[in-house]
Amino acid sequence: MKINTNYLNLKDNYLFSTIAEKVSDYKNANPEKDLISLGVGDVTLPLAPDVIEAMHRAVDEMSDVATFRGYGEERGYSFLRQAVCGYYAEKNVELDENEVFINDGAGSDLGNILDIFAVNNSVLIPDPVYPVYVDTNIMAGREIFYMSGNIKNDFLPLPEKKADIIYLCSPNNPTGAVYTKQQLKMWVDFAIEHNAVILFDSAYEVFVQDGDLPTSIYQVENAKKCAIEFCSLSKMAGFTGIRCGYTVVPHELVCGDMPLNKLWLRRQSTKFNGVSYVVQRGAEAVFTKSGTAQNKKNIAYYMQNAVHISNTLQKLGVWHTGGKNSPYIWLKCPGKMSSWEFFDYLLNTANIVGIPGEGFGTNGESFFRLSSFGNQDDVAKAMEILNKLEVFA
Amino acid sequence: MKINTNYLNLKDNYLFSTIAEKVSDYKNANPEKDLISLGVGDVTLPLAPDVIEAMHRAVDEMSDVATFRGYGEERGYSFLRQAVCGYYAEKNVELDENEVFINDGAGSDLGNILDIFAVNNSVLIPDPVYPVYVDTNIMAGREIFYMSGNIKNDFLPLPEKKADIIYLCSPNNPTGAVYTKQQLKMWVDFAIEHNAVILFDSAYEVFVQDGDLPTSIYQVENAKKCAIEFCSLSKMAGFTGIRCGYTVVPHELVCGDMPLNKLWLRRQSTKFNGVSYVVQRGAEAVFTKSGTAQNKKNIAYYMQNAVHISNTLQKLGVWHTGGKNSPYIWLKCPGKMSSWEFFDYLLNTANIVGIPGEGFGTNGESFFRLSSFGNQDDVAKAMEILNKLEVFA
Repeated sequence: MKINTNYLNLKDNYLFSTIAEKVSDYKNANPEKDLISLGVGDVTLPLAPDVIEAMHRAVDEMSDVATFRGYGEERGYSFLRQAVCGYYAEKNVELDENEVFINDGAGSDLGNILDIFAVNNSVLIPDPVYPVYVDTNIMAGREIFYMSGNIKNDFLPLPEKKADIIYLCSPNNPTGAVYTKQQLKMWVDFAIEHNAVILFDSAYEVFVQDGDLPTSIYQVENAKKCAIEFCSLSKMAGFTGIRCGYTVVPHELVCGDMPLNKLWLRRQSTKFNGVSYVVQRGAEAVFTKSGTAQNKKNIAYYMQNAVHISNTLQKLGVWHTGGKNSPYIWLKCPGKMSSWEFFDYLLNTANIVGIPGEGFGTNGESFFRLSSFGNQDDVAKAMEILNKLEVFA
Repeated sequence: MKINTNYLNLKDNYLFSTIAEKVSDYKNANPEKDLISLGVGDVTLPLAPDVIEAMHRAVDEMSDVATFRGYGEERGYSFLRQAVCGYYAEKNVELDENEVFINDGAGSDLGNILDIFAVNNSVLIPDPVYPVYVDTNIMAGREIFYMSGNIKNDFLPLPEKKADIIYLCSPNNPTGAVYTKQQLKMWVDFAIEHNAVILFDSAYEVFVQDGDLPTSIYQVENAKKCAIEFCSLSKMAGFTGIRCGYTVVPHELVCGDMPLNKLWLRRQSTKFNGVSYVVQRGAEAVFTKSGTAQNKKNIAYYMQNAVHISNTLQKLGVWHTGGKNSPYIWLKCPGKMSSWEFFDYLLNTANIVGIPGEGFGTNGESFFRLSSFGNQDDVAKAMEILNKLEVFA
């Protein structure tokens, strides 16, 4: 046997293990101190009551021979795909239910989608960004180009260098920056002109508060001709431990005369056996009127944290993006501090844990990510501490 | 963009759609007839009470902020990996919990595992067999060699042609044939001699009744040096709609000095976010003493069907494998009938639906698969009908 040697080109990702180690060392040396985590990108509020009820009902169905379900439908159950179509209809996007593929989270499909593209496609990836785009393409041996997100462009790079596969993430992880419709239109036009495909990660769309900002790339004309959209219930409905998301592959999206929907169906029906029936019933409840209302309360809770953090930084005069239409706040480290130096400073001086921007790409070296998924009292405490920090004085 | 043109080399798989079409045509023409399905490889009995209870408990935990869980552990929860290790201990196989990776079913990982191997590995696949092995390798553009399963070798091909990646499935789908330890030892020795890796699909191991037959390849000496084992709770515990399985990648399995366990962990932690907490708690209950006893009853129910079918064919003098240590029965079609001719005959004359062997490879052209996952009364009725069929007279 021979291994896939592309794996040897992967950088070991020590981001989270290094953070864990530093936190653990500090705790051991200072057992009396309480640390506040504004680091993790994981939700903390429990599932909505309707989701819980739907899952209980589904579990009960599996206990009775008359209602038991075995293998499900290839793209996911029709009831859930229709619910997703209904969700898009509210965004003024019309989808056919066969354009929707239910999955176990956006993270899986963002990697798996590459199966249907040739290895010799070039790839354009924003820097900084969610590391999975880079790693999955290195694993496949593709040529990667980076587009620079920076203060000048508010971490929203626009078309410049052409490539076959273009990743966009809006609201962005880690920067929280959100493309306008006009900016997305530039990307759509560019992709169509150059026969490129856009892989659009909209996992954080539910945090968009400004009604003028797009929550789906399909709100932009012609996007169905060039874009695949990935979304997840992880943040929308607290599903990080329940695992459900969906991928939209429009019928209009073709390469030559080959519909990508057909290729993706072939991939999924061969390599994937679908999401648990119990989970799909829980996910269905997310999209009902009542389920939506329940989850909106949770989103509002997190967004109060985000606004609190953003306002604090604003008053302190700290440059940052995000926090208004996203759960993440991306800030410039004070002075000439590197992101790891600021991490150590914040840990030791303020007992606050965040994520060094360097973990998301070289452009993140002097930036830092704070997350709003924590408890409101903790966030309030952390903001009081930030207000008094010497480094911001 | 350019598509992965290997997909164009896939044969459209019309097996199940053609069956569905023929069945539907027959029903429309004969609305008064009741058909008995001995076709589908899907379970029909409900989940064990302990599994149901465990899943309800887990759903409740997700409703409370104090017990809510977000992202899980990279390889799956330790409680479940330990339960799997306990299951293997009963087989006299010692595993470390970090050798176990929890997944959403064996089907996914049987395809995904290929990511960690170079494209220029040659692949050896039995014919007939579960079609996913072939399709996933065609998608990746690998050279495939087939090893012939036939009446002479009881559909248990032994080492002959060398290759880098060797697929074995025992108990086999579709033939129900099971390798002995001695035969598996020949494969293990062969793989080690030729630096090959064995991908061992043991999804049906729980149906093995004969205590001398292996239920894991690791019951064979040195297998940890050359084999990855894939198993699923789909058939073991009726999880086809719940979705859980596991992959074992032993620490001893290296390519040069690269442990495959490390590569696979990198793949999974990048491209997969784990199985639903609720599902993992349900899976944990499968491996308890009480859960095992409950599921054994279901397995016994299906095996009564299998034995009933096998005994009937035996009395009729029909050559077949399987049915003794597997839920599938693989029979030689009568006379010179092709598998599709026999399908039509059985549908029209006996109102019984099975699966034409041709769907599993060219060697299946004059064979036929019957499944024991149906209702016992239906199977009894079907066997009465078979007993009177002219073609077997």
